[in-house]
Amino acid sequence: MKMKQIKVGIIMGSASDLPVMKDAKDILDAFGIEAEVQIVSAHRTPDKMVEYARSASKRGIQVIIAGAGGAAHLPGMTASMTTLPVIGVPIKSSNSIDGWDSILSILQMPNGIPVATVALNGAKNAGILAARIIGATDKKVEETLAKYSTEMKEKVEKSQDQID
Amino acid sequence: MKMKQIKVGIIMGSASDLPVMKDAKDILDAFGIEAEVQIVSAHRTPDKMVEYARSASKRGIQVIIAGAGGAAHLPGMTASMTTLPVIGVPIKSSNSIDGWDSILSILQMPNGIPVATVALNGAKNAGILAARIIGATDKKVEETLAKYSTEMKEKVEKSQDQID
Amino acid sequence: MKMKQIKVGIIMGSASDLPVMKDAKDILDAFGIEAEVQIVSAHRTPDKMVEYARSASKRGIQVIIAGAGGAAHLPGMTASMTTLPVIGVPIKSSNSIDGWDSILSILQMPNGIPVATVALNGAKNAGILAARIIGATDKKVEETLAKYSTEMKEKVEKSQDQID
Amino acid sequence: MKMKQIKVGIIMGSASDLPVMKDAKDILDAFGIEAEVQIVSAHRTPDKMVEYARSASKRGIQVIIAGAGGAAHLPGMTASMTTLPVIGVPIKSSNSIDGWDSILSILQMPNGIPVATVALNGAKNAGILAARIIGATDKKVEETLAKYSTEMKEKVEKSQDQID
Amino acid sequence: MKMKQIKVGIIMGSASDLPVMKDAKDILDAFGIEAEVQIVSAHRTPDKMVEYARSASKRGIQVIIAGAGGAAHLPGMTASMTTLPVIGVPIKSSNSIDGWDSILSILQMPNGIPVATVALNGAKNAGILAARIIGATDKKVEETLAKYSTEMKEKVEKSQDQID
Amino acid sequence: MKMKQIKVGIIMGSASDLPVMKDAKDILDAFGIEAEVQIVSAHRTPDKMVEYARSASKRGIQVIIAGAGGAAHLPGMTASMTTLPVIGVPIKSSNSIDGWDSILSILQMPNGIPVATVALNGAKNAGILAARIIGATDKKVEETLAKYSTEMKEKVEKSQDQID
Amino acid sequence: MKMKQIKVGIIMGSASDLPVMKDAKDILDAFGIEAEVQIVSAHRTPDKMVEYARSASKRGIQVIIAGAGGAAHLPGMTASMTTLPVIGVPIKSSNSIDGWDSILSILQMPNGIPVATVALNGAKNAGILAARIIGATDKKVEETLAKYSTEMKEKVEKSQDQID
Amino acid sequence: MKMKQIKVGIIMGSASDLPVMKDAKDILDAFGIEAEVQIVSAHRTPDKMVEYARSASKRGIQVIIAGAGGAAHLPGMTASMTTLPVIGVPIKSSNSIDGWDSILSILQMPNGIPVATVALNGAKNAGILAARIIGATDKKVEETLAKYSTEMKEKVEKSQDQID
Repeated sequence: MKMKQIKVGIIMGSASDLPVMKDAKDILDAFGIEAEVQIVSAHRTPDKMVEYARSASKRGIQVIIAGAGGAAHLPGMTASMTTLPVIGVPIKSSNSIDGWDSILSILQMPNGIPVATVALNGAKNAGILAARIIGATDKKVEETLAKYSTEMKEKVEKSQDQID
Repeated sequence: MKMKQIKVGIIMGSASDLPVMKDAKDILDAFGIEAEVQIVSAHRTPDKMVEYARSASKRGIQVIIAGAGGAAHLPGMTASMTTLPVIGVPIKSSNSIDGWDSILSILQMPNGIPVATVALNGAKNAGILAARIIGATDKKVEETLAKYSTEMKEKVEKSQDQID
Repeated sequence: MKMKQIKVGIIMGSASDLPVMKDAKDILDAFGIEAEVQIVSAHRTPDKMVEYARSASKRGIQVIIAGAGGAAHLPGMTASMTTLPVIGVPIKSSNSIDGWDSILSILQMPNGIPVATVALNGAKNAGILAARIIGATDKKVEETLAKYSTEMKEKVEKSQDQID
Repeated sequence: MKMKQIKVGIIMGSASDLPVMKDAKDILDAFGIEAEVQIVSAHRTPDKMVEYARSASKRGIQVIIAGAGGAAHLPGMTASMTTLPVIGVPIKSSNSIDGWDSILSILQMPNGIPVATVALNGAKNAGILAARIIGATDKKVEETLAKYSTEMKEKVEKSQDQID
Repeated sequence: MKMKQIKVGIIMGSASDLPVMKDAKDILDAFGIEAEVQIVSAHRTPDKMVEYARSASKRGIQVIIAGAGGAAHLPGMTASMTTLPVIGVPIKSSNSIDGWDSILSILQMPNGIPVATVALNGAKNAGILAARIIGATDKKVEETLAKYSTEMKEKVEKSQDQID
Repeated sequence: MKMKQIKVGIIMGSASDLPVMKDAKDILDAFGIEAEVQIVSAHRTPDKMVEYARSASKRGIQVIIAGAGGAAHLPGMTASMTTLPVIGVPIKSSNSIDGWDSILSILQMPNGIPVATVALNGAKNAGILAARIIGATDKKVEETLAKYSTEMKEKVEKSQDQID
Repeated sequence: MKMKQIKVGIIMGSASDLPVMKDAKDILDAFGIEAEVQIVSAHRTPDKMVEYARSASKRGIQVIIAGAGGAAHLPGMTASMTTLPVIGVPIKSSNSIDGWDSILSILQMPNGIPVATVALNGAKNAGILAARIIGATDKKVEETLAKYSTEMKEKVEKSQDQID
Repeated sequence: MKMKQIKVGIIMGSASDLPVMKDAKDILDAFGIEAEVQIVSAHRTPDKMVEYARSASKRGIQVIIAGAGGAAHLPGMTASMTTLPVIGVPIKSSNSIDGWDSILSILQMPNGIPVATVALNGAKNAGILAARIIGATDKKVEETLAKYSTEMKEKVEKSQDQID
């Protein structure tokens, strides 16, 4: 039973991308931001992709996170059919050449249709970026991010103890 | 007035790709194979792309040649919506990183949806490959190709004279 | 006389990056979104960078666009000192190795501090992405983006006339 | 006892390439298209290569699939001695540098002699591409491909159940 | 109880970098040069980084060794806030693309702020380079280095015995 | 009127490679080693290539220099049909991707068929290498090479005068 | 008439490297640090290189800057024959593949013999790094560097005026 | 007891390169060509390298094979101090970046000092190339090579049986 408004749509072309992409869902859960996970393939279910991208904004979604590997067309194609910000996660999948194909086919979008690309396999950062986007106009989320930032700092500081 | 059946569809995302892509049209013209040229952008006119890809076979087209640069999604997306062979031409456009993005985002298609990729800016070879595909079941085209092959051989042989 | 709230901060390390980065300002101007342009160098004015990043949210800025070339640290360092979404523009500057250094040193951020990276020299797309981020909660901007998308489509469709 | 006409010739330089290349044979078998598998080395059995390439069309073969790794000359050399479409499969063999050598020495053919290159280790897609080529003038094969496409779509749609 | 003047500061962004970076400490220990190890993250503890870099010279430190992976900003940012020589060690961390991102984001510093970059995972060489820098004005260290060089030579010469 | 025994065969796929490849001929001329230049294309004149490679040794040729660009098959294919040493010159031709394709498709030969690869566009070094191979059993050529080496040393030493 | 002690030796393999390498000399001149410029080729004048490297420390030199392009052996070979810190400048010379060969053959030194590598064509930074090394034990040079750092900061701040 | 004239000198910088380099020795043994194996490090035993390179020709050696990884200077430096043909074997050692550094620092030699580079880890081919060089003026070795070529052909032909 999902009562809260889903704000982030996480999509990927295959269930085999889930081990990487669930980091986005996990961090958004930790931040208290409702997200959904959908298998949407640019090449195998193009109609579902079109429908998903075109209806997302109307459904109240504010950010789409799309993960893909190899010749990764899902993030860019989704971005071409919505005005929402789309975050692309290049995945180093089994058929990828060290991730270079995934990165370049997501990052190098032509003028007019941007994709906010994060690091290779950077699904966690995709989730945090989605939170930052929402937090730009949502003070509560901004505070959560500030707290997260402080925790990271403290964790690094504590790791010094392991060394001394 | 085009009376002959169009057998090859040449598509590209922007008129700026035409200086590269017209090599495909020229060689097909020289081979006597009817081809059409259309501006179809995966990112800017996705609906036109869907319609073009889905109707091509019914219209009698036997091969689609799609050229694109940067994050080049047109060949792969077209291939996902037709059963025709799709030839991809990676273009070294102004926004491309030495062509690597164009090549990898066309070549590295996932299992199930192949794109027949040719060399960077290899539109002429895309046209010849389209002719070879048609020639596989069309003796007249096969003969044209055999003649073309002989001419290439003779041209190389004659170039020796320039040196001696 | 600037009365409107500045929503997007565009920063770069050197005035020599301006020819690339002004595309971000221009498209935001066209969209009616107020943006400021500042020279802030991670390596030459680290204190200004710290101050800029830490005060941006309080000043009402919703998105920061940071452009840099070579060992490009400005986007990532800025992202480490704000909770706002930071868009990174890799610049193919004169000291860059075909842009690879710019891309990788912006894109490959560690977990916790994402940078929304766009294509090499993709300042225009950075501006559009900033608009999409703002448009996620601002219907007027969303409409502007939808209109922009329609104009792109029409422009591609008209370019067919040049060919026929 | 092979009574059906062999339509696709699958060749490779070494039996060690078979674990990759048999994916082409398997998918063609599944599609009901007769294919043969031959060990033909450009460098070790050049005479056999010349004979294979030159006789293929006369033997009724419509498409040749050639797999090779490292300095991969088999696809291109075969293409230079036939008018049939040749599909090249770059193999990430043990002596290859992450597959880059295999890809570039197959893809970057000079004008006049195209090779239809598929993804690294993409033998399955090579088989599907061969079927698409045959299907361009064979309605039964085209229907098989359409059915295959539908099955892929359904498989992706079902994988959503694993997540929900 | 550290009584000797610390001459080399070894910093890294995460305790996970320690297995690589301790080679720098070990060789400096072997050379009798006092070194300290600190976890200082450019992105997670920027304030600590600023303070460390700005106070190092006053504390008597003569060389800083900074190790980082991925979008590796620690060496360059540290160099921007000290006049001491900073040695950068690109680390092939789990989130790095074969080390290319680490190398390029450390090496390609803009004019004005050099980082003395060593090989990928080259922490041992970073330690030796620090010793060479100190040895440039410290005869005792120079002698230690000369002895080390002789030992390397002898070790290679002895390895011939294993073969003959 | 060529009376002297031709010892080095210089071949290339196209007369357009001549501006690069003539450096090999020039240095061999300067060394007094007889060389011939032939246009032999692996892809356009495969029969001529086979004949050239197979007859070279019988004709008294001791070394073959083969230059090629893009998917460069001429050096490797020639090496597969002779027991003579074959020197490969990767050419940065107009259709090459910064020379990477030329290098990798010449260098990465499989076990059994070596090609002695020199630097990109390194035709001059190919000529010198051919001379070194001949000089290994020809004292007069060895002396020419020793003299050439001395001249290079003196030229460098003299260039110091330009600076002081 | 050079009376001041030469502290930095700047070497390069060819006078053609001088346009890049003179930036090192210029900045050291500006800092008031005496430097000499020598043409020393690893491959053409190996004896001079050996002598230069082995005598540098005795002649009072504290840092060697070595610039080279392509297969760049001068910095590493020099480092193997001195205990002084050697700074390597990868040069994007005409025979270099976009500078990658220059960078990798300088940077990737084996354990035991470090080279302090700076950015491609980064001769100015090499000079500044040499000053930082000398400044580590020379307060006057350290002050010069601090002043230089301040000037850079002010220059960036002033460039803001061009924009506003 | 070695009575036969040593014709090939195989050198490498470290005993750790032996597992790769012994392939050169093994194939030369199989061909009946006498070869010696020496550990000679460009960086750790530069004097031994100089002596080895300068005396090799006088000792009757006709070809030098030099293997090295990372910033691989041994082949090029050796070539600079002999007129013999030097074959370089790029080794994918533990400190190498996928072999790219090894390849580029051996292959990209400046004009005047060629190195005959073979494939990454291609020590076997280095041995065969040495045999081809010797065979260019030694009919018995040429016959051995012709026989080896025939055996390779037969081996490939037999492997067909495994498939049928």
